[in-house]
Amino acid sequence: MLPKALSREQAQLRADTPGCQHIVHFNNAGAALVTKDVLETQKAFLDAEAGHGGYETATAQAEALKRPYYELGKLLNCSSDNIAILQSATAAWMQVFYGIPFQKGDRILTSVHEYAANYIAYLQVVKRTGAVIEVIPETEQNDVDIQALEHSILHGKGRPALLAFTHIATNSGRVYSADAIGAVAKRHKVPFLLDACQSIGQMPLDVAKIGCNWLTGTSRKYLRGPRGVGFLFASDEAMKHFEPGTLDMCGAEWTSESEYRMQPGAKRYEQYERNFAAVAGLGVAVQYANELGVDWIWERVQHLAAELRVNLARLPGVTVHDRGTLLCGIVSFSKDGVAPARIQAALLEKNINVHRSARSSTRLDFERRQLPESVVRASVHYYNSGEEIDQLVQAVWEAQ
Amino acid sequence: MLPKALSREQAQLRADTPGCQHIVHFNNAGAALVTKDVLETQKAFLDAEAGHGGYETATAQAEALKRPYYELGKLLNCSSDNIAILQSATAAWMQVFYGIPFQKGDRILTSVHEYAANYIAYLQVVKRTGAVIEVIPETEQNDVDIQALEHSILHGKGRPALLAFTHIATNSGRVYSADAIGAVAKRHKVPFLLDACQSIGQMPLDVAKIGCNWLTGTSRKYLRGPRGVGFLFASDEAMKHFEPGTLDMCGAEWTSESEYRMQPGAKRYEQYERNFAAVAGLGVAVQYANELGVDWIWERVQHLAAELRVNLARLPGVTVHDRGTLLCGIVSFSKDGVAPARIQAALLEKNINVHRSARSSTRLDFERRQLPESVVRASVHYYNSGEEIDQLVQAVWEAQ
Repeated sequence: MLPKALSREQAQLRADTPGCQHIVHFNNAGAALVTKDVLETQKAFLDAEAGHGGYETATAQAEALKRPYYELGKLLNCSSDNIAILQSATAAWMQVFYGIPFQKGDRILTSVHEYAANYIAYLQVVKRTGAVIEVIPETEQNDVDIQALEHSILHGKGRPALLAFTHIATNSGRVYSADAIGAVAKRHKVPFLLDACQSIGQMPLDVAKIGCNWLTGTSRKYLRGPRGVGFLFASDEAMKHFEPGTLDMCGAEWTSESEYRMQPGAKRYEQYERNFAAVAGLGVAVQYANELGVDWIWERVQHLAAELRVNLARLPGVTVHDRGTLLCGIVSFSKDGVAPARIQAALLEKNINVHRSARSSTRLDFERRQLPESVVRASVHYYNSGEEIDQLVQAVWEAQ
Repeated sequence: MLPKALSREQAQLRADTPGCQHIVHFNNAGAALVTKDVLETQKAFLDAEAGHGGYETATAQAEALKRPYYELGKLLNCSSDNIAILQSATAAWMQVFYGIPFQKGDRILTSVHEYAANYIAYLQVVKRTGAVIEVIPETEQNDVDIQALEHSILHGKGRPALLAFTHIATNSGRVYSADAIGAVAKRHKVPFLLDACQSIGQMPLDVAKIGCNWLTGTSRKYLRGPRGVGFLFASDEAMKHFEPGTLDMCGAEWTSESEYRMQPGAKRYEQYERNFAAVAGLGVAVQYANELGVDWIWERVQHLAAELRVNLARLPGVTVHDRGTLLCGIVSFSKDGVAPARIQAALLEKNINVHRSARSSTRLDFERRQLPESVVRASVHYYNSGEEIDQLVQAVWEAQ
């Protein structure tokens, strides 16, 4: 059991978080609660834009707008030159994926827990180019089957053009062994794109150790940053071989009537326009995570999630659906005879936020595991308290 | 001459605009000053997200998030089902352009004042697909040469796959006859994409009258909305024949392992994540423009810009560069012996915001007209006063 009294540090984390006064927030895998500083940074930026002009404020606040590059470089163990800031994680992911010149018969290797946004993009590109999707199975322990992946790369028919994996599924607590995928990618020189939307901010990520060519992430989830901003790590190696999916005059310079020159570094993936207030807010959010230390965050998130799973599993009729060797802050469950929408609504009446994951978000996983049409997703963050977990469990118990 | 005293209505417009207290803003073609309501709407939205959760706020504020669709439909004379909201005008434009399946030899017909972001995208696609760019010349009156355009469609070598035109150049005051381009596009059934980034909000735009298949625009310029949000009009006809450049689970539903179904209407062009506070702010901004009436706005903007051009042209050594049958709120000029950067800095010291347009932003136009490496761009909006124009002219006179 977690101690009910908060330590002074925990009390401070909650005091830094305005939302903790109003709600019990277990939708951190949707959009986490921002800190007071993240909120105030954005509002001050908007005030400055309104008072002095948008372009003029971006120039005046150049340092604040550089911070997310620096802090993300620190968080991911890379140079800030390898970081691009985009309008969302999806925008970042699309800039990589649609930049790969797939040919007929090329294979996109992915997993059973792949996210809908990515999978739909695969299907569109399959239709356009004649590439094919190959879904790598899982081990019995619900990790990606590395042997099967390697076997497919070596013996499958058609060039393995891309390994595209979601690190943590949107609908389930399991974490894939990104390092092991990266090792295989390196060994066989296959480009590797990791969607780290749900992992960034809740667990340590080291792009050098993972060995991915690209990693995409969002501000709004475990990093506790603003909405409408995301980012990308791109390796030097990747940038030698691939262009971004689209280019504008931020990503490239128009050098003569028929020529452009891409920017050095990951800036080539960016577009000029973005919500600059959100970019400044992201810098503050990542700095906060770096100061807390992501090792500490990861330990606490795992601890709270484990506590929640144990307590939910004890409730009559409740099934916890997370399976895997390594589980994260996302807890998914259902309750016999009570629709997930009903549970979500009952919890919201008690000021408890959770999310529903629908089949259409991770279709292959739902079908393979024969999950119901949707499941309830409760995702913990380090600022959640033991008391809040008790409130959630109690409310699920009462929901009918 | 403009009357120096403000009418009650003009005083109200300035009172609605917090920035008018601090600065003299002639960078409206960069990012205009937002109204107090636009600012407060965004800040309240961010407060709600911080206090109650990001997803939960988006659900609770569904009406506010629908407003930009409704108001833009009203502004553009189309159904809100034909409007998509994206993270920027560039993102919107790219979603259209990269969705067109160009084949080798296909022609992209565009103009001499095309914007760098678009032109760089043409060059990337030319490299990828073997399509070619054809630049339609201007008439002596600096409008697009419609006869040359029609001749090219009929007699040029290779399929005319797209007419892609920027309505108003970023570096100059002239307005192209979009209606005339649209009439030709319709007559010969060539898809027509209009970049209305600089025209939306300063002049009336009617997509039915223009006859374009797509129109893209931004929030932050003449519409006076937040940064980091843009939009797209897509016609029903266009959506019958073309897919968006990228698709995620907002634009399409993942219906079975190997199939997706695009959303009906322009929603298919959207991505799920965006800065929702900015979307809500955009709704308020467009409503304000609709309430003022864009005919009135256009008359006032033209009047102020004409006044500014006349007064600048009288200054010794100053050349106004705008040429065209129809001129808008963008005024471009240079001064002998004083570098544009120096003028911009001297003006900023007096709290006057202007912009510099560089050759690399509209390279073909700069080269053809033998303009200097950059020009000063002063862009007026309806809230600018006659007194502010005098201040600007005086400051340009003094700049050395």
